[in-house]
Amino acid sequence: MGIKSFVNCVYLVVLFVVFQSSVEGRLLLLKNNKPDRNNAAATARWLVSQNSWGVLNTISLDLGGAPFGNVVSFSDGLPDGGSGVPYFYLTTLDPTARNALKDQRSSLTISEYPLGTCGKTDPENPSCAKMTLTGKLKVIPEKSKEAELAKKALFTKHPEMAGWPQNHNFQFFSLEIEDIFLINWFGGPKPITLDQYFHAKLNKMGAIFE
Amino acid sequence: MGIKSFVNCVYLVVLFVVFQSSVEGRLLLLKNNKPDRNNAAATARWLVSQNSWGVLNTISLDLGGAPFGNVVSFSDGLPDGGSGVPYFYLTTLDPTARNALKDQRSSLTISEYPLGTCGKTDPENPSCAKMTLTGKLKVIPEKSKEAELAKKALFTKHPEMAGWPQNHNFQFFSLEIEDIFLINWFGGPKPITLDQYFHAKLNKMGAIFE
Repeated sequence: MGIKSFVNCVYLVVLFVVFQSSVEGRLLLLKNNKPDRNNAAATARWLVSQNSWGVLNTISLDLGGAPFGNVVSFSDGLPDGGSGVPYFYLTTLDPTARNALKDQRSSLTISEYPLGTCGKTDPENPSCAKMTLTGKLKVIPEKSKEAELAKKALFTKHPEMAGWPQNHNFQFFSLEIEDIFLINWFGGPKPITLDQYFHAKLNKMGAIFE
Repeated sequence: MGIKSFVNCVYLVVLFVVFQSSVEGRLLLLKNNKPDRNNAAATARWLVSQNSWGVLNTISLDLGGAPFGNVVSFSDGLPDGGSGVPYFYLTTLDPTARNALKDQRSSLTISEYPLGTCGKTDPENPSCAKMTLTGKLKVIPEKSKEAELAKKALFTKHPEMAGWPQNHNFQFFSLEIEDIFLINWFGGPKPITLDQYFHAKLNKMGAIFE
């Protein structure tokens, strides 16, 4: 291979690498489109809209009243416009729904870590956002308008739910939020009122709040 | 560029791609090295040894006795030999440690989903493993042998912890497990005794249990 051909070849390899990096770069850009950390309410809504699963906690009477966390999928709306209300699709074959029907006290805990925007920061480092929404876990009445909303929100983000066995008696639940605990930087939890949370403004993309 | 040079060049690009794929392939192989799903105890130990963070749940007196989940980092030992006991490094500046000092009832919830081995399966699908260890969250006495174990386990998997501010009074905690809830396939939770859990066998790699 002559020098000129070698240079051409290196050029091709570089082009290939740049192409790969640019694809990854765009993904990174998309992921990084998170609100300014000083806007706590927007950060909270962003975490809820971007995560597809979390840990839903209830009081377990079977386990001596212990707090029982369970991995669940959730959705607060369509990908381009969440409502901030987390909806769930649960069966009483699982302890969480059974617990909630006896005692509605509950919390949903989510992390920024699985979104991939914390980089190499430790998941417990305050600069990697974490949030707990505490409130009441309630069954949504069948055939209500809210049940339709929950179904659309969940089945859009979790398509396989539409095919889950009917005889398992899945029901739609919502978390009626009473308290918001958010840490997304040093200096302790950020105070957020329900009003601030539910009225955080959408940015131009619709999906991400600022 | 002549045909021969072109062929050489294509060869180089192909080599580059093969190299990249093999690196990814090895990572995939490592991730997929999970125990047979019928070995519930080994699966439980694998989940604990492979996850670096989870949701630690306590009873919040500040929030009317609600179950309060919090994102935390944990470790059950060195990467090549976990003990099955989850250790934590917590400060009472955070509600979880404060709650535990008043009421030790607690659970740790982890998922296979962030490990990347569930593929496109929904995080709530029973074939994507999820586990809740329920028990008592206890402070480990300072300068004890267990404190040394916890420190080594945590600081090895979470190196930045060694530099966390001393005036935040971080303490080592352990979860004294009383109940194991594991779902890793259809058909409901798998019964696992503490004895089965703590005596699950290491495979030849040391890190992964079978």
